[in-house]
Amino acid sequence: MGFYWSDNELKCKQDHKVYSVAEIVEGLTDPIYLYDLVGLRHRMSVYKDQVGKKGHVHYAVKANDHPRILKEFVDAGFGVDVVSGGEFSKCLAAGFSPADIVFSGVGKTSEEITLAISEGVGQINIECPQELERVAFVASHLGKKVSVAFRMNPDVDAETHPYIKTGFRENKFGMDRSFLPELERILAANSRHLELRGLTIHIGSQIRSVKPMVEAVEKTLIDFEVLRRRGFNLLSFDVGGGIGIDYESEDLEADETFIQEYLKKIREVLDPVGCEVVFEPGRSLVARFGVLLGEVQYIKKTPFKTFAILNTGMHHLMRPALYEAHHRIVPVKARPEGSAELYDVVGPICESADVLGRERMLPSLSQGDWLGIMDAGAYGAVMVSDYNSHRRPEAVFVGD
Amino acid sequence: MGFYWSDNELKCKQDHKVYSVAEIVEGLTDPIYLYDLVGLRHRMSVYKDQVGKKGHVHYAVKANDHPRILKEFVDAGFGVDVVSGGEFSKCLAAGFSPADIVFSGVGKTSEEITLAISEGVGQINIECPQELERVAFVASHLGKKVSVAFRMNPDVDAETHPYIKTGFRENKFGMDRSFLPELERILAANSRHLELRGLTIHIGSQIRSVKPMVEAVEKTLIDFEVLRRRGFNLLSFDVGGGIGIDYESEDLEADETFIQEYLKKIREVLDPVGCEVVFEPGRSLVARFGVLLGEVQYIKKTPFKTFAILNTGMHHLMRPALYEAHHRIVPVKARPEGSAELYDVVGPICESADVLGRERMLPSLSQGDWLGIMDAGAYGAVMVSDYNSHRRPEAVFVGD
Repeated sequence: MGFYWSDNELKCKQDHKVYSVAEIVEGLTDPIYLYDLVGLRHRMSVYKDQVGKKGHVHYAVKANDHPRILKEFVDAGFGVDVVSGGEFSKCLAAGFSPADIVFSGVGKTSEEITLAISEGVGQINIECPQELERVAFVASHLGKKVSVAFRMNPDVDAETHPYIKTGFRENKFGMDRSFLPELERILAANSRHLELRGLTIHIGSQIRSVKPMVEAVEKTLIDFEVLRRRGFNLLSFDVGGGIGIDYESEDLEADETFIQEYLKKIREVLDPVGCEVVFEPGRSLVARFGVLLGEVQYIKKTPFKTFAILNTGMHHLMRPALYEAHHRIVPVKARPEGSAELYDVVGPICESADVLGRERMLPSLSQGDWLGIMDAGAYGAVMVSDYNSHRRPEAVFVGD
Repeated sequence: MGFYWSDNELKCKQDHKVYSVAEIVEGLTDPIYLYDLVGLRHRMSVYKDQVGKKGHVHYAVKANDHPRILKEFVDAGFGVDVVSGGEFSKCLAAGFSPADIVFSGVGKTSEEITLAISEGVGQINIECPQELERVAFVASHLGKKVSVAFRMNPDVDAETHPYIKTGFRENKFGMDRSFLPELERILAANSRHLELRGLTIHIGSQIRSVKPMVEAVEKTLIDFEVLRRRGFNLLSFDVGGGIGIDYESEDLEADETFIQEYLKKIREVLDPVGCEVVFEPGRSLVARFGVLLGEVQYIKKTPFKTFAILNTGMHHLMRPALYEAHHRIVPVKARPEGSAELYDVVGPICESADVLGRERMLPSLSQGDWLGIMDAGAYGAVMVSDYNSHRRPEAVFVGD
C-alpha cells in the first residue's frame, strides 16, 4: 500500500494495481503534489475500526485542506476540527454537516464565531475566558445556544517530558485549572446561550510515544470529574491530535501499530468514564499519502559540496526550513548502473534556508531527473507561499 | 519621515503632513500591511543621489513585489533584479523595460529562460556551468544573443566573518574561481549567443558592516581583472544586495548614513576599474516603509505569561518564526494612564512557533487594541501563506 521504492523506482500500490510515478510525471515541467487516496482510505479505516461507535474522529483540516481530500473524509463519515472561519467554510463546501465540525484555535474573531454559531457548529473549543465571553455575546446576539468545550493545559511531568512541559507553560494554548472559577462564572451568567459539553486537550505535534498522551488524559480527567461533581453534564472528552509518523522510514504498518496502541490505551482510560471520546488526528492520517515531486534543474558540483537544484523548495514545503524537519528524498527513477553520491537537495528560492535535504546519499543524479520528497501529505500544500513568485504545485491523484 | 511612535501613538509623517495610524485602522476588522510611499521615495533618492550616473540600482523585487511599489521604482528610473519568471512577468506588467531587468537565482527553468531571452532581458546572472549551457541552448534556439554575468562566490576571510564564510562554502549560491575554465569553454563554444558582460556577487542578507562587502568586491576584482586580461570585455560589476537595517531602532537616518558609507566605499574600490557598478538592494529600500497591523483578539493571562493574541501572525509575517527575526512591536494607540506589562505577542495559528514577539514590555493592552509590527515592508507580504485558511492582509497606502 502507498508510496514505496522498489527496483530503482518510486511506485504507488493501490489494492492490486501498481503505478509508476515516473509515468505520472512524464512530460510535466512543474512540480506537483501527488496523493494516494486509496492509501488514505485504508489509513482512515484503521482509525474507524479501532475507535468504534463510542468515539468520534474529527480530522484536523489544517494538515491538508484540499477539497478532494476533505471529500474523502465526508464520505467516510468523519467529523472535522477547524481552526478558522476559512476552514469552516471549506468544510461546509466539502459537504460536512455543521454539527460535525469542532471549531478550535486561539484567536477566533467575532466574525468567525458568528459564522460558526449561525451555521450550527457542533462545538467550539474555548482557549481563554475572554473567548468564552465573546462566544456568549455572539450566541446571545443570535439568540442561539452553543456547545463549548474547555481546552485544558495538563502539566505533564517535566521529569519525563521536559520539552512538552516547557511547551505547555510557555505556549499560548489551553488553560490551567486556575481558570475554571472564572469560566464557571461566565457559564452561569450565560446559561441560556452556553452549554459546557466537555473538555479538550492537545499536548503537541508529531508525538511518537503513548505515555505523555495518557498522562495528559489522566491529569485532565481530574478536572473532568470535578466539573461533573459540580453539576456539569459533561458528555465528551476530546483528546486532540498530535500522533506522529516515522519520517525516517517508509513502514506504514509501524504507523498503524502505533495508532492502534494509542487508541487502545486512550480508550482503556476513557471508556470507564462514560463519555464520548473525540480524536483529532491530522498528520497521522494524511502525511504518508502525499509526495512532493520536483525536477532536477541543475547539478552543481563545488569543491565543497554537490547540489541538486530542484524546481521545488521551501515555498512548496516549508517544514525543513521552518522546523529542520526531515523528509526522505528518493529518485523517481534511478539509473541501475549509477553509483551513489552525497547531495544537498535544494530549491530555487534565493535563501540559504531553502534546503529540502542535507547530505543525502542518492543514486547518481542528472539534470531532468525527478525526485520525490516523501511523507509530504500533511503540513505541505497548506503552507505553500508565492515567495519569489514561482507557480504553486498542482495536486494530482494517483489512479485518477 | 516614515513611521514613528510619539505621544502614545503610531504615526506616519509624509513631508509636512502627519497621519494617525489609529485613524487609518478605525473600523477595520482584518489585519493590513500599511505602506508609506513617500518615505520609500525618499529612501530611493538616497541610493540615486549617491550612486550617480556611473552606477545602476536594480531593486530586488523578491523583497516586496506589490504592483504599487514596483510602479514607484519604475517611475524613479530604477532597474530590477528578479529571481523567477513570475517576477519577470510582474515587472513587465509594472512597466519596466526588459533591458532594465537582471535575472538572478539558482534554479532557472528552461521556460523561465525562454521568457527572459524572448522579451530581451538585460542580463542573466549565471550560477553554474549547466545553467550557462542551458542559456546558450535557449538563446541559440531563439536565434538571439544574451548578456550574462557570472555570479562568483568570494571566499571572505573566515577569521573575521566565520558565519559568512561557512555560508559561502556550504550554500548553493555562486561559483568558485575553479569554475572559470569550464565557463570559458562554454562561452567560446557559444560565442554567437552569449556575451559575458560582467561579474556579480551577493554575499548574504541583513549585513550591517561594510568591511565584508568591500572584501568580497576586492577578492572578486582579481577574477574580474584576470578575465579582462584574457580578452573579455567586462562592462559591469554587480555587487548584489544584502544591506541591512537596524530592526531594534526606528532611526531612519542611521540607515541612510550606513547606506551612504557603503555606497561610497564600494565606489572608491570600483570607480577606478572603469566599469558600470550595479547595486541590487531590496530590504534597505522597502523594509522601513511597511507595517503589519493587527488587532488584539484576546488578552490571555496564565500563571506563567500574558499573551496578546492577534488576528495576524506567522501566516502574514514569517520572519520571526523562520529566522527568529526581531521586529519592534508598538501599540497603534496606548492609554496614557496605563502601566507597562510584559507580553508574548502571538498569532492565531495553531503552532507554538506562531510568536511575533516574545516578552515585550508594552503599555497595558486590551481586547480591540491594534498593534504595529514594524519594519515589515521587506520579506513580509511576499511570504504570506494561506496556512490555517485565514484571509490575506490587504495592502493600504498612507495618504492614499
